[in-house]
Amino acid sequence: MADSELPTRPKPEETGAPAAEGDSKSASKNAAKKAAKEKAKAEKAAARAAQEKAQAAAQEANDTAKHLYGKLPESDDVNPTTRFSDFTDEEKEVTVVARVDNARVQSAKLAFLMLRQQGQKIQAVIAAAEPISRQMIKFTGGLNVNSIVQVTGLIKKPEIPISSATIQHLEIHIRKVYMISEAAQMLPMQVKDAERPPPVETADDAPQVDSEGAPIVTLKTRLDNRVLDLQTETSQAITWISSGVAQLFSEYMIKSGSRWIFTPKLVGAATEGGSNVFEVKYFKRTGYLAQSPQLYKQMCIAGDMENVFEIAPVFRAEDSNTHRHLTEFAGLDFEKTFDHHYHEVLEFAEDLLVFILSQLKERYAAQIATIQKSYPKAGDFKLPKNGKALRLNYMDGVALLKEAGVDMSEQERFENDFSTAMEKQLGQIIRDKYDTDFYVLDKFPMAVRPFYTKADPSDARFSNSYDFFMRGEEIMSGAQRINDIAELEESMRSKGMDPTQEGFEDYLNAFRQGCPPHAGGGLGMNRIVMFFLGLPNVRLASLFPRDPQRLRP
Amino acid sequence: MADSELPTRPKPEETGAPAAEGDSKSASKNAAKKAAKEKAKAEKAAARAAQEKAQAAAQEANDTAKHLYGKLPESDDVNPTTRFSDFTDEEKEVTVVARVDNARVQSAKLAFLMLRQQGQKIQAVIAAAEPISRQMIKFTGGLNVNSIVQVTGLIKKPEIPISSATIQHLEIHIRKVYMISEAAQMLPMQVKDAERPPPVETADDAPQVDSEGAPIVTLKTRLDNRVLDLQTETSQAITWISSGVAQLFSEYMIKSGSRWIFTPKLVGAATEGGSNVFEVKYFKRTGYLAQSPQLYKQMCIAGDMENVFEIAPVFRAEDSNTHRHLTEFAGLDFEKTFDHHYHEVLEFAEDLLVFILSQLKERYAAQIATIQKSYPKAGDFKLPKNGKALRLNYMDGVALLKEAGVDMSEQERFENDFSTAMEKQLGQIIRDKYDTDFYVLDKFPMAVRPFYTKADPSDARFSNSYDFFMRGEEIMSGAQRINDIAELEESMRSKGMDPTQEGFEDYLNAFRQGCPPHAGGGLGMNRIVMFFLGLPNVRLASLFPRDPQRLRP
Repeated sequence: MADSELPTRPKPEETGAPAAEGDSKSASKNAAKKAAKEKAKAEKAAARAAQEKAQAAAQEANDTAKHLYGKLPESDDVNPTTRFSDFTDEEKEVTVVARVDNARVQSAKLAFLMLRQQGQKIQAVIAAAEPISRQMIKFTGGLNVNSIVQVTGLIKKPEIPISSATIQHLEIHIRKVYMISEAAQMLPMQVKDAERPPPVETADDAPQVDSEGAPIVTLKTRLDNRVLDLQTETSQAITWISSGVAQLFSEYMIKSGSRWIFTPKLVGAATEGGSNVFEVKYFKRTGYLAQSPQLYKQMCIAGDMENVFEIAPVFRAEDSNTHRHLTEFAGLDFEKTFDHHYHEVLEFAEDLLVFILSQLKERYAAQIATIQKSYPKAGDFKLPKNGKALRLNYMDGVALLKEAGVDMSEQERFENDFSTAMEKQLGQIIRDKYDTDFYVLDKFPMAVRPFYTKADPSDARFSNSYDFFMRGEEIMSGAQRINDIAELEESMRSKGMDPTQEGFEDYLNAFRQGCPPHAGGGLGMNRIVMFFLGLPNVRLASLFPRDPQRLRP
Repeated sequence: MADSELPTRPKPEETGAPAAEGDSKSASKNAAKKAAKEKAKAEKAAARAAQEKAQAAAQEANDTAKHLYGKLPESDDVNPTTRFSDFTDEEKEVTVVARVDNARVQSAKLAFLMLRQQGQKIQAVIAAAEPISRQMIKFTGGLNVNSIVQVTGLIKKPEIPISSATIQHLEIHIRKVYMISEAAQMLPMQVKDAERPPPVETADDAPQVDSEGAPIVTLKTRLDNRVLDLQTETSQAITWISSGVAQLFSEYMIKSGSRWIFTPKLVGAATEGGSNVFEVKYFKRTGYLAQSPQLYKQMCIAGDMENVFEIAPVFRAEDSNTHRHLTEFAGLDFEKTFDHHYHEVLEFAEDLLVFILSQLKERYAAQIATIQKSYPKAGDFKLPKNGKALRLNYMDGVALLKEAGVDMSEQERFENDFSTAMEKQLGQIIRDKYDTDFYVLDKFPMAVRPFYTKADPSDARFSNSYDFFMRGEEIMSGAQRINDIAELEESMRSKGMDPTQEGFEDYLNAFRQGCPPHAGGGLGMNRIVMFFLGLPNVRLASLFPRDPQRLRP
């Protein structure tokens, strides 16, 4: 089925909605002729329908299997259903609830279903033999794809493995099949077509079918029909990885004695750069959506909370239409006091990432293997063998790039950051040299960091700040923060900001009232998932992605 | 210190900011006279400052303790600091980092500090004896309240317990005291004054001091200065309970095999009632803030995710200025498929709440005890003794109220819900009769539930929906959802909604493509904290609360 097909809607007479009104200006001399033709057609259709109904009634009277299929009967039968994953080789009767991935009538006496549960597929077969009737076979083989059915049957070993199924060494011999939720006959795309990865090329004149004649489903079509797309085995696995990243982050933070915080997303001022912030109508005022919990998590530290973390949406009104930008993403933030040196917090964060990434490999090996079938290109994610993160200084990165022929001028080194291309190249250099896809760069130039960043006390051109990288792309930015009010106000002025401007008073007061030294960082959950799995687009790592063009579904 | 005092700001000459410009029109004949007077005053002040400086220099030359106090020296001394909670009775030297809760010079040879760590207080004493100098005693006793200091000293048992401290049987004999972060001399409120609960009455003419002459700090002042307010022992304990609720919710959900989801907060249409939704400027379009993840978590179920949960902000543009309404709060949402009956999900949710509430009691007993010192009125939260939630039907609630003399008319029973006052009264009746503060009402009238709610198949006046209550106030609403497209569209029309209206197509298509039966619910985290602890206001259970009036800090 092509991408452009729209989902079928119920006809007006089915929904009770008024039929669309005809265009009153288009009365034509052909109208009468047309009407007569239509009438004849309708009569013919009615006659055919009546005949079919009569045949059906006659058949039903003879149907030995009437009670074994059709609409799910109301009953007190509350036998538990079994999941595919719990099937064993033992030949026994089971009841399953599953999607119809495919339905096919082989003959009047034989039909096949491919059943699907969270992307896992198993074959079910129905053959005419007392009490199973031909009518029941026709019903089963004619089920609309994607409908949800309850099937009772016998698990058996097939004579030859079912190569198109996920569970190849078992099949279900159907005894009962009931409809739980019927899907429309026409779907905007087939789940099985979305199992193949989307083409990189998405131009309007891109091919519609692949070399084997199978429809090519573009990323846009998938995302427009995300509910169907989520049903694929690959999407099921990706959403498990996302869930895992959030779970592992919270696990590590809670174990460290951190407190889970919920800071406001509705804020009174655009304190982190005015242009990339979403404006909200807040009763009779203007509010904004927080671009990060930065100022608030620091205020929690000033409020003596010592070690805090947050898992919450982050909003960026940035008009970036790239493979790795979203306007809303899940932020994993933390902030922590330290005793003597910000490297105490940096090491904590490095261990956090090593924990998350290594535990993902351990706990989600099956999901990772599934995803690699569709996206094999990037290969296994490499972690440092000694279990500790590789940490280099920014200037080490500059030197590594120089060795590879990419030289930054003196000015570029201190006033710019690496370009995206440079970052990727550096990622490759580091992979080749240190055999890791995860690493940390410390001591970024002060000029490229936000006003609240602590300058390096030994060289003010640099700062006590760090970025974390996966496969050469940034997933976290963090730093020691200035905790002295005079230093903070001075830093604002040096960045051209006015400390007395509206919206900063509460933040600055937190430092006037005393604040301990602290550092922290903010991770992008979707990017961690994307780069860990080597997905070509961050939208594949978001349930319902948001970008400048997309605000639905 | 009174509430109305503002935090001190650095003077313009300290910050380098330009002084405010004078009003050019106000030149007066007194200007010359005034200038002369100011000049004389300035000269006098300069002379005094010079004298003080000379004295200080002379004293410093004789100061035997110069290296033992003042600004924290840069050094390689990275001895770990100790927390108050790790103190033992053993007499030994420790280094601590803490707030100055109070500082007092007793005599030229003796000063006291009250030190504070996350609300916990211990006394520190400094007495003149080699090498400690009078200057060091003056410095210590003169420290600004709320400053953060590093103190090294000997832990000893005091002769009599320190009644004003939290740790009464120990004190620190100071050997070194260094400033880490100095607080301004004037604070908008004192943390110790915020330790007492806010008055219920907050009128402008309310008294400023209590019967013992201590300042009364209103809820408004506390929230305006939330960073200071968070430093109280009570706030520290409340924020731990909030953290605990989120942690326990995620623990239970993950254990049940649920997937953690992140659904978009930026949405294209106001699908859940137009008037209470915040409007967002989304590039060149209008977007909205999600009022709940309802439609999206259902779409995840239609996407075969089977069991999902979310922890995320919920936005309500409701102009309600009550003790229990916020415009932004933390929502704990879940949605789950079931096999035969929605009570499978209802029981799951009941067990979830029993788990959260009983584990709070077990894991946070110390915090609960602390909070009860400030808010004793509500008493211990009562849970059912048998570990299972009490479940009644809505009509049972109607009957219990009738017994107590509150009779609803036939029409009211089916078209209204209980009023807040009725709910509270019912809570009291149920507490008296069943000895529990937590209970569930099932089978609410269909007329008071949203369009996606499944009607009770045996009596269409009712619905398969439930509310959870704590101390007679609602903390969760949930239901079985309609999973059949025709039934869903019919329900929309019966509620006066148009299924073809913009913004519903993606949601409705999810059902056209087949969707399993499911149920779920949404909890308000802040309300759980508020009612569990018996707090008088939900704002006390939010880090930085948002209401129609409040968008800061």
